[in-house]
Order: sequence, then C-alpha cells, then structure tokens
Amino acid sequence: MVSITADVSGLIKSWQIQAGMCFLFMPHTSASITLCESYDRHSRTDVENYFERTVPEGASWYRHTYEGPDDSPSHIRTTLSQSSISIPVDNGQLGLGTWQGIYLFEHRSAPHTRKVQVRALKIS
Amino acid sequence: MVSITADVSGLIKSWQIQAGMCFLFMPHTSASITLCESYDRHSRTDVENYFERTVPEGASWYRHTYEGPDDSPSHIRTTLSQSSISIPVDNGQLGLGTWQGIYLFEHRSAPHTRKVQVRALKIS
Amino acid sequence: MVSITADVSGLIKSWQIQAGMCFLFMPHTSASITLCESYDRHSRTDVENYFERTVPEGASWYRHTYEGPDDSPSHIRTTLSQSSISIPVDNGQLGLGTWQGIYLFEHRSAPHTRKVQVRALKIS
Repeated sequence: MVSITADVSGLIKSWQIQAGMCFLFMPHTSASITLCESYDRHSRTDVENYFERTVPEGASWYRHTYEGPDDSPSHIRTTLSQSSISIPVDNGQLGLGTWQGIYLFEHRSAPHTRKVQVRALKIS
Repeated sequence: MVSITADVSGLIKSWQIQAGMCFLFMPHTSASITLCESYDRHSRTDVENYFERTVPEGASWYRHTYEGPDDSPSHIRTTLSQSSISIPVDNGQLGLGTWQGIYLFEHRSAPHTRKVQVRALKIS
Repeated sequence: MVSITADVSGLIKSWQIQAGMCFLFMPHTSASITLCESYDRHSRTDVENYFERTVPEGASWYRHTYEGPDDSPSHIRTTLSQSSISIPVDNGQLGLGTWQGIYLFEHRSAPHTRKVQVRALKIS
C-alpha cells in the first residue's frame, strides 16, 4: 500500500473546493484504492498479509495464468476491495477520519505504473 | 450491524431532495457501511459470523496488536467491506431495493461511538 | 458475471454527458456490480470460483436458510464485493481502463431478473 492522501488533498486545495464530494477511481483491474489506518505501518502490513494469505499466488485451480501466477489473485483481491471511493469535502478539506489515509493497494508482485482518477463536485 | 436506514431517509426528506444522489461515508477504519437484507435478522447474523470466522481475532501473524486483539481484524474487515456508498434518490426517496437496508457494521468488540457522513447532490 | 459495459456506455452517450461522474447502484442484496478484466473470460471464472469456494453454499452454521442454501452465501458475497460504483466520464466516454469491464455479478444459483440503477452528474 502506498499513501496517496497528500496527492488527493493537494488536488482538492488547488481546485478550491470548499464543500462537495471527491471521487476516486482506479482504472486498473489488479490494484485498488483502500482507506486504512495511517498511524501504524503494521496495520497496513496486516491487511496486505491477509490478502496474500487468503488469495494466494499460484492456486492449483486458477485458469487465468498466462500473465503469471500473480495475475489472477490480483483480480480477485481487486474485487474484494474497492476501485471507487467517494469522500466528502468540507471547509476545503477531505472529510477523512483522524487516522484514516487513502492508499493505492498494488496487488501484483512486480512494480507497475498506476494512475488514479480524481474528480470533485461542489455542493452549494 | 445496526440499521441506519431511517436516519439516512430522514435526512433526504428534510433536505427535500427530489432526484439526485446520496453519498454515505464512514470516517473510521474499524467500521463499515453495508447494504444488507433487512427482512430476516439471521441474514445479517450470517454475514457477521462470516466476517468473524474469516478474519478472526488474535491470529498469530498479526503485528498491529497494541490496541488489542480485535483491532487488526477490524481494519481487515473494513477493507473487505465498504467505507463509502452512493445511493440514487428518486421522488424524494432513497432508491433502495424492497428488502435492502443500510447498516453500520461495527468491527471492534467493545462499543464505539461512530459518525457516518451523509451528503446529497441534486440531479436536475 | 454478465457484462453491462455496453449498456452503461450507451446510456452515457444517449444522455450526452461530456464530462462528469456516472453512478451505478445495485438495488438487490444477492448480486453485485463488479469491475473486472474484460479480455480473458477465465479471469472472471477465477473470481467466480473464488467466491464460490470461499463463501460456499450450505455451510453448517448458516441460520438464514429458508430461501435455500444459496441465499445466505449470496448476501455474504454481496457484502464482500460492491453494490455501488462511481466512474468518471470524460469526452463523452466512461473512464474505464483499457481492459476494464463492468459486470453484474449474480450470486444466487437460479436465474434472477436484476435492475441496475444508473445516474450521471455533469462536471462543468
């Protein structure tokens, strides 16, 4: 998991949205957008380990295997987490909880370049 | 799971939104917002039991443990369910299915005070 | 999983939305809306098999059983996946990734008629 909280907060400030909704969208099928505890790195380690243990690489029954043993589990892990998240904006700031961060959750084992789409709508 | 359907419906009515979108957001990392069958209480009991069985307290490999044995599983359960949900509003009412209710899904074992953020946008 | 990508794209075009957000909502508690890889059918087969293996029919501890052995797992599978998804619209088109499709993920074993709610908001 890689934090993108500062990137998204920066966009909302640069767009000068005072009140509204921020929409995040992941246009990939092997990575997710996840909200998680930002204080202790081990809380994310445990989430990451859970996904790796529960949806392991190379299960004998996978049929979608030609892109490697980590591809099918990455699609399953994406389905189990989120590709789109909507966050309120108030007083020009994301309405996240105190210890809540926004993370790009990469599910493949090799590094990938990912783009997250960010949009916002004002509520008047 | 605690029903919040009436609370959200009441807000939409008080805001006099005829047509639009309602956005729910959970600013906590150890509780979710879940849509579930509202008719039979046992349907939610089964969902609750599934989460408790699949993401148990006190697994030997958890590293995020200083807030108690129920903290790390509560983050994992949150990641597996939803922190944000968008529901259409039509004719001044939430577009839920007949037996579909909105639930606050608490993942920690001790009682917590939780706030759910509710926003709405009109579609003209 | 049944593809609904063309249906949703067609609506966005007919509404002549150039830039904005598209909101999908499933008003049922035993089917989901899922984004998944659209290229290889086996990638969806693996996701389907994962859900069937991980949340099996007829577990001995299910209490919500009077609608059949596939009803309680269908609610659990819905909770583990998505009932609402928000997708950006740019240049009149859904901002999906190249190989990303929108799927109705039916969780019951018998055929059901399902309606997916689609809404859109313009961003000016």
